[in-house]
Amino acid sequence: LAEDLHHSCQWGFGIRWGEAPTDTGMQRLALSEEDRNVRNWFIKTMQDLRCNVTVDQMGNIFAVRPGRRADVPPTFIGSHLDTQPTGGRYDGILGVLSGIETLKTMNDMGLETEGGVGVVNWTNEEGARFPISMVASGVWAESIPLEQAHALKEVPTVASLPTAASAPETMKSALEKIDFLGDVPCSYKSTPMAAHFELHIEQGPHLVSAGQRVGVVTAVQAYRWFRLNIIGRDTHTGTTAFEHRADALYAFSRMMVRAREVAAANGCLASVGIVEAKPGSVNTVPGLVSFSLDIRGPETVLVEEVEKKLRSDFDAIAAAEGAGIGKPCRVEWTLDFDSPAVKFHEDCIDCVQQSAHAVVADTPVADTKSLVRSIMSGAGHDSVFTSKRVPTSMIFIPCKDGLSHHPEEFSTADDCATGASVILQAVVRYDRK
Amino acid sequence: LAEDLHHSCQWGFGIRWGEAPTDTGMQRLALSEEDRNVRNWFIKTMQDLRCNVTVDQMGNIFAVRPGRRADVPPTFIGSHLDTQPTGGRYDGILGVLSGIETLKTMNDMGLETEGGVGVVNWTNEEGARFPISMVASGVWAESIPLEQAHALKEVPTVASLPTAASAPETMKSALEKIDFLGDVPCSYKSTPMAAHFELHIEQGPHLVSAGQRVGVVTAVQAYRWFRLNIIGRDTHTGTTAFEHRADALYAFSRMMVRAREVAAANGCLASVGIVEAKPGSVNTVPGLVSFSLDIRGPETVLVEEVEKKLRSDFDAIAAAEGAGIGKPCRVEWTLDFDSPAVKFHEDCIDCVQQSAHAVVADTPVADTKSLVRSIMSGAGHDSVFTSKRVPTSMIFIPCKDGLSHHPEEFSTADDCATGASVILQAVVRYDRK
Ligand SMILES: NC(=O)NCCC(=O)O
Ligand SMILES: NC(=O)NCCC(=O)O
Repeated sequence: LAEDLHHSCQWGFGIRWGEAPTDTGMQRLALSEEDRNVRNWFIKTMQDLRCNVTVDQMGNIFAVRPGRRADVPPTFIGSHLDTQPTGGRYDGILGVLSGIETLKTMNDMGLETEGGVGVVNWTNEEGARFPISMVASGVWAESIPLEQAHALKEVPTVASLPTAASAPETMKSALEKIDFLGDVPCSYKSTPMAAHFELHIEQGPHLVSAGQRVGVVTAVQAYRWFRLNIIGRDTHTGTTAFEHRADALYAFSRMMVRAREVAAANGCLASVGIVEAKPGSVNTVPGLVSFSLDIRGPETVLVEEVEKKLRSDFDAIAAAEGAGIGKPCRVEWTLDFDSPAVKFHEDCIDCVQQSAHAVVADTPVADTKSLVRSIMSGAGHDSVFTSKRVPTSMIFIPCKDGLSHHPEEFSTADDCATGASVILQAVVRYDRK
Repeated sequence: LAEDLHHSCQWGFGIRWGEAPTDTGMQRLALSEEDRNVRNWFIKTMQDLRCNVTVDQMGNIFAVRPGRRADVPPTFIGSHLDTQPTGGRYDGILGVLSGIETLKTMNDMGLETEGGVGVVNWTNEEGARFPISMVASGVWAESIPLEQAHALKEVPTVASLPTAASAPETMKSALEKIDFLGDVPCSYKSTPMAAHFELHIEQGPHLVSAGQRVGVVTAVQAYRWFRLNIIGRDTHTGTTAFEHRADALYAFSRMMVRAREVAAANGCLASVGIVEAKPGSVNTVPGLVSFSLDIRGPETVLVEEVEKKLRSDFDAIAAAEGAGIGKPCRVEWTLDFDSPAVKFHEDCIDCVQQSAHAVVADTPVADTKSLVRSIMSGAGHDSVFTSKRVPTSMIFIPCKDGLSHHPEEFSTADDCATGASVILQAVVRYDRK
């Protein structure tokens, strides 16, 4: 598994942080040349394992090892091979690779299953290049219209990366460019599943700080992504008194400080990942700021409350900046993506739980039960969308310092192997139900 | 004058704000193709006026109408033809055009002067493309080394503009590209001046709000330009608690809010015009923020005090962000440009003052004296550097709403004509001294 995982990372080396050959992060934005290369490797690998491979209209790749019965849909192991611009080697990649490992092991053992077992690589899970995360599993679930997904434009910050085109690309043109605009309709109706399991690094600190080995993921927190514009007035930095300014960047700064206060007070998170100030000259007060806002919380209603409070607080901040000249800043919100809180399926959770306890049972500690815990996911995953249509759950393993979306993201080979064993057993258990 | 002014604006139309042909701003970044075109027009115009034209190693263009005596250096009228990315039609352009107008009038009147009278177009006065304002008059004054100026790189935000190259260009390569790397050494020794006069729009609200017609500029406030980096840690927006973040953009926001507080408390200004957050993904907390900081004040020591306080406050803000993970943000400062407060030369001020009173004397108001006032400049001008080597002063005229570095920057044709009359008289007066 470790070998395959690092092998698959040859397409899209990111930032180097250590001396060993594998001490680099990953930069493999969705539908980039690097993504094309790893996709082709994935297809070849699955065909060598005697799988049937199909590609749908969102570039999702489904590889199926047939079971005894043709009348039941396969159980899938899925995740994604795309990464953040400064991503690591585990987020998503581990999930797909554990699927490959599972099929290899089944082949080696000559294991027959009732239904087929498949591996799926979902497109643009990160939302780093095209700013809707899990967009392709969203289309599969018929939660997001195909047309909307195809028309989605890449974010401006990506345009400066070597992997991206100079003019903003749409998902559809990017799919065509790397030859992954398949003809299978992207829908759970055309590519049905019995269930969906996903192995992932936790991306947070709970397992690692408690010394626990497996997280049985029962739920995913809610989140919303917005794009905001603040419209102020360009003016000279040297001749314009503060009272005469409608400084869109100063308003932005106050908003970002406020966003953290409000989110914290509601047990939520609020984050800005992208900001652009125009015109971008040392001695011009910026008249236009565009930024992304990511609000998350354990309950959908909490995210809604934070949004509501921020809408009114941001209006007040904008109104105060430029009031002196009777030309206050204005703020505009666009909702790009809404992912309500999700609870996974009891049957899948049970399979994972039993498998996890079985796998950790040989750990040399007194109470192996304590090595497994239930956990909620802070991040979104393709399992969020599959759970809308088929029984779904996830498995987490610990990662160093709880760090993710960073080149130094790391999980030990042991922890990866534990996760892979759990997902293999969970799939087999589910198949036998 | 108005005709020539708008004629010269045909190279580099900026943002349209009204319906008349001249209702556009300007986007003519230093050493862009648009700048090349207006420079060639300027040279042709000056040669048609029987001037001798030279170009120095910084692309400064000097055009001289000879006087009676060859043994005294010419008196210059100077300003700049480059603009902000979202600039207007007056800032700098009016100054050069008033020089052309002055020489035309002298030719028409058959006026002979003792020394020659020249017009100079200084390169990259704005500092909008290459982030040292007045850099080419700075080299002429031998205040800035030629090598440093030639090596100066364009700002990142300009790379996205249609006028600029895709990879950051240096001043030297940009000068070569538009064929304006002259061979005359850039120095007050090679191109001596008897004096330097500059007409400019105020770019601030004092004249226009008091209904005054001419500002006799006696001084220019101090300013410093910095580039700052905040180094934090990239991490996941959905899984990383606020206490576990070293969010460089959150630290930036707090710094920008603090900068205004500290500047205001010291009677100064502090502004951020450029900000870049990396890696620039909706769901990654930015680990690196770079930004520009422009601090100004009426006394050099006040700017120093604001800088000192901000250095310590920014350190404290950085230290607090990421303290929870023992990996606090760090902040690095680079000084790009330092322009101490300047006082202009009494002789030049006197010439401007007398000329201003003479020009406004026929205004139909009781007290024409009150139409002229002494004023300090909030913005920097090439006159700051010429004043280090030769007697210098400036003339301001009112502009609408005090607005500048904005497409709607505007001064009436009447006010421009008043300014041009004042500068013509001031030059003649100085010549006769
Ligand atoms: N697992 C993960 O990083 N998914 C990206 C979507 C999100 O931002 O939560
Ligand atoms: N006049 C003017 O806008 N000069 C640019 C230099 C500055 O920022 O003050």
